[in-house]
Amino acid sequence: MSTAAIRYRPEMSRSGLPPTYAVTVVDEQGRTEEGRIAGEFPLTLYVDRLEIVTLMTLGTHPEALTLGYLKNQGLVRSIEDIVSIQVDWDVQSVAVTTRSGTEGWEEKLARRTVTTGCGQGTVFGRIMEELDQLQLPQKPIRQSTIYGLLKNLNEYNDVYKSAGAVHGCALCKDSEILIFIEDVGRHNAVDAIAGLMWLEDIGGEDKMFYTTGRLTSEMVIKVAQMRVPALLSRSGVTKMGLDLARKVGVTLIARAKGRHFLVYHGADNLLYDARPSF
Amino acid sequence: MSTAAIRYRPEMSRSGLPPTYAVTVVDEQGRTEEGRIAGEFPLTLYVDRLEIVTLMTLGTHPEALTLGYLKNQGLVRSIEDIVSIQVDWDVQSVAVTTRSGTEGWEEKLARRTVTTGCGQGTVFGRIMEELDQLQLPQKPIRQSTIYGLLKNLNEYNDVYKSAGAVHGCALCKDSEILIFIEDVGRHNAVDAIAGLMWLEDIGGEDKMFYTTGRLTSEMVIKVAQMRVPALLSRSGVTKMGLDLARKVGVTLIARAKGRHFLVYHGADNLLYDARPSF
Repeated sequence: MSTAAIRYRPEMSRSGLPPTYAVTVVDEQGRTEEGRIAGEFPLTLYVDRLEIVTLMTLGTHPEALTLGYLKNQGLVRSIEDIVSIQVDWDVQSVAVTTRSGTEGWEEKLARRTVTTGCGQGTVFGRIMEELDQLQLPQKPIRQSTIYGLLKNLNEYNDVYKSAGAVHGCALCKDSEILIFIEDVGRHNAVDAIAGLMWLEDIGGEDKMFYTTGRLTSEMVIKVAQMRVPALLSRSGVTKMGLDLARKVGVTLIARAKGRHFLVYHGADNLLYDARPSF
Repeated sequence: MSTAAIRYRPEMSRSGLPPTYAVTVVDEQGRTEEGRIAGEFPLTLYVDRLEIVTLMTLGTHPEALTLGYLKNQGLVRSIEDIVSIQVDWDVQSVAVTTRSGTEGWEEKLARRTVTTGCGQGTVFGRIMEELDQLQLPQKPIRQSTIYGLLKNLNEYNDVYKSAGAVHGCALCKDSEILIFIEDVGRHNAVDAIAGLMWLEDIGGEDKMFYTTGRLTSEMVIKVAQMRVPALLSRSGVTKMGLDLARKVGVTLIARAKGRHFLVYHGADNLLYDARPSF
């Protein structure tokens, strides 16, 4: 018998789509061959019949994406406020029912417009203010843990391997991958992980976050909002990603491939217990 | 003496920022080394004092980005309507002055909110309707032209080579690169190219568009809006990118590296005049 308290869960559809689709392509010799491409579908989010946003998504985790979007945008504060999440791909939409309704949201959404970036999707001014309050705990990170994690990550990213055109994100505890989600938008992959963390009441403080994508301002902001103090990436870092990581205390490890990595912030947290001999 | 008519040009600042910045990083041996990272800065766009949006950008082409954003979002229809574009990085903003003002824009922007995707930045419903009207001209594309172009592109992407974390986009005529722009957001790179095309009155019909990024719905939409009938990428294709390319007639060539490429749509337009012998 489990001793865990019974967690509240909204009523949710389970409407994940297949991630890849067969296509016929023609190569450089003029030969026809079969290939696979990643899905990409519009999903329009309605909360109590108010239209909020259209997300372009791979569609494998639409309910978790919806949850994480509502949380990360600061639109819903408590999961108990959400009665149900029902995805209907026939009309490319998801209907969320809440207890407290959307009174005052139109103003919130209008304010969002003017500070939402094309391709950014963040509520810039408000989020910057919130980050001013935030200081993440500094945790030691073993080099051997990073290598173990990178090894374990090789077994994931199925969609990328078969079809490309997606980014993968993972929530990790030590070398273990707790959640791995791919999406055509990396913001969606992060939001979907945030949604699952919310649903399962998983804290971020003792975790590491991995992404195949670049460590830009938005990635650091989202990871900081999830209270995860360390961010690992195969790709590079931008100036504002670094500035924000310094500000809130996110250890930033990028260019991680094979045995190589570069620590852009928080090198004091690294325990070099597995230095390569070459 | 040039016979070209004198083109109207808004009064514009020239406030491009340096693209990369020095940082100190620590590698997997615990060694400190010097590296470079790509810039990323918030740029808040005001039109006649109305706040429109905050874009996160590399900052090398802020005026062109502003122009292209206003055009691609359908906010300004004629370049003659724009009196001036003044970027001031001290306050991380750009002030646009127009002749006809922003009456009715608040409603336009409010409508945008509810259909703008996180990480997508497109006005989904309206743009889909506009695409229904669009059919791009079908142009033959020589394989030798693709190879010549890929070779010429090797000399660009300076920021990526030195700092990573950016996407590059190019407007090309045959094998010649007319404009090459990198940005931390690939939507920004496309918008900045659209801005320069608008400024210089360059048509898209006889061009090809190259991007290092994935061919998603948004990339196909933007290229179609610029009337460019062919899209070439080093990366992959998503399902909706392909669906839209079929609908409006954009030839889609992806996975282009070395001699290899795959044609996802419009293979009938390819002239195989340079088949590799291996």
